[in-house]
Order: sequence, then structure tokens, then C-alpha cells
Amino acid sequence: MSIETLSSQNEKAYALLKEDAAKIRQLIEVQMSNLTMPQCPLYEEVLDTQMFGLSREIDFAIRLNLVSEEDGKKLLDELEKQLTSLHEASMKRK
Amino acid sequence: MSIETLSSQNEKAYALLKEDAAKIRQLIEVQMSNLTMPQCPLYEEVLDTQMFGLSREIDFAIRLNLVSEEDGKKLLDELEKQLTSLHEASMKRK
Repeated sequence: MSIETLSSQNEKAYALLKEDAAKIRQLIEVQMSNLTMPQCPLYEEVLDTQMFGLSREIDFAIRLNLVSEEDGKKLLDELEKQLTSLHEASMKRK
Repeated sequence: MSIETLSSQNEKAYALLKEDAAKIRQLIEVQMSNLTMPQCPLYEEVLDTQMFGLSREIDFAIRLNLVSEEDGKKLLDELEKQLTSLHEASMKRK
């Protein structure tokens, strides 16, 4: 029972982090297609702040042993890669 | 056993959040006494980013039922109050 509860807590933690990463991606997609240029300092600032927020969440989850360091790092790395591709695609269109 | 494990997890989560709030307070104290003026935009930016990071951690902990909404809000409110007093004290000295 204890292990079950803990592992479902771990799954929930990971699912929440993935959800938050997806939200950042969506926010950046919307920004890129509608509002600001990727060269805009405001864009950089929003992105940095959002990434910082997610990295704090992930770090917190790791310290609570809810997520492994490896999984946490992978999540952040993947999001960064996706954002880089989005950025490149947007630069090509302009 | 399950309840024990979960409640120690909750305690750990709350302790970590309090630690992180203390770190922000220390960072701001150091900044105020050494580096930049409270009117400096960089100071505002660091503070906003740090507060955003902590609020993401707290929100995450609430969503995992590790911390109650009330305790999370209280933690953030208290830190904000402390930072305001620090800010006021620093303004008086200048």
C-alpha cells in the first residue's frame, strides 16, 4: 500500500511536470506566431522566467525523490530542444 | 506506514519550501547591502524571477497535495512581507 501510494505520487509528479513543460511550449508557440519577434528582449525574458520556474519545480521534485535526476534533466533538455526548433522555424519564416 | 510515509513527505516538502524562501530572503539581503540599489531594474528582475520560481514550487506542491493551499499562500505572503520590510529599511539607510 505504501509503495503503491508513493509510486502513484511519483507518476502524478512526473505528469504534472510534463504538463507544465507542454504549457511553456504552447505559450512560446503562441508568442512566436502572434505577438513578438524571437529577437525581442521581452520574448527572451518570458522564456527565461518560464524555464526558471519549471527548473525550480523539477529540482523540488528531485529533492523529494518524486522524480529521478535523470528524468528531470531529460524533461528540461527535451523542452529546450523543442523550443530551439520552434525558434529556428520561426526565424526561417521571417 | 503509508500515512506515516506520506506525512513525512509532506513535512519534507514544507521544509524544502521554507528553505527556498529563506534563500531568496538571504539573496535579497545580500543584494541590498552590497550590490545594487532597490530602485535598480536588475534588482526587481531578480526578485520577480525568484518569487516566480518559488510560487511555481509551491503550486506544484499544492497540486500534489503535499502542502495545503493555505500554508502555501501563507509562506509566499510572509516572504513578501519580509522583503517589503527589508526594502523599506534599506531605503531609510540611503
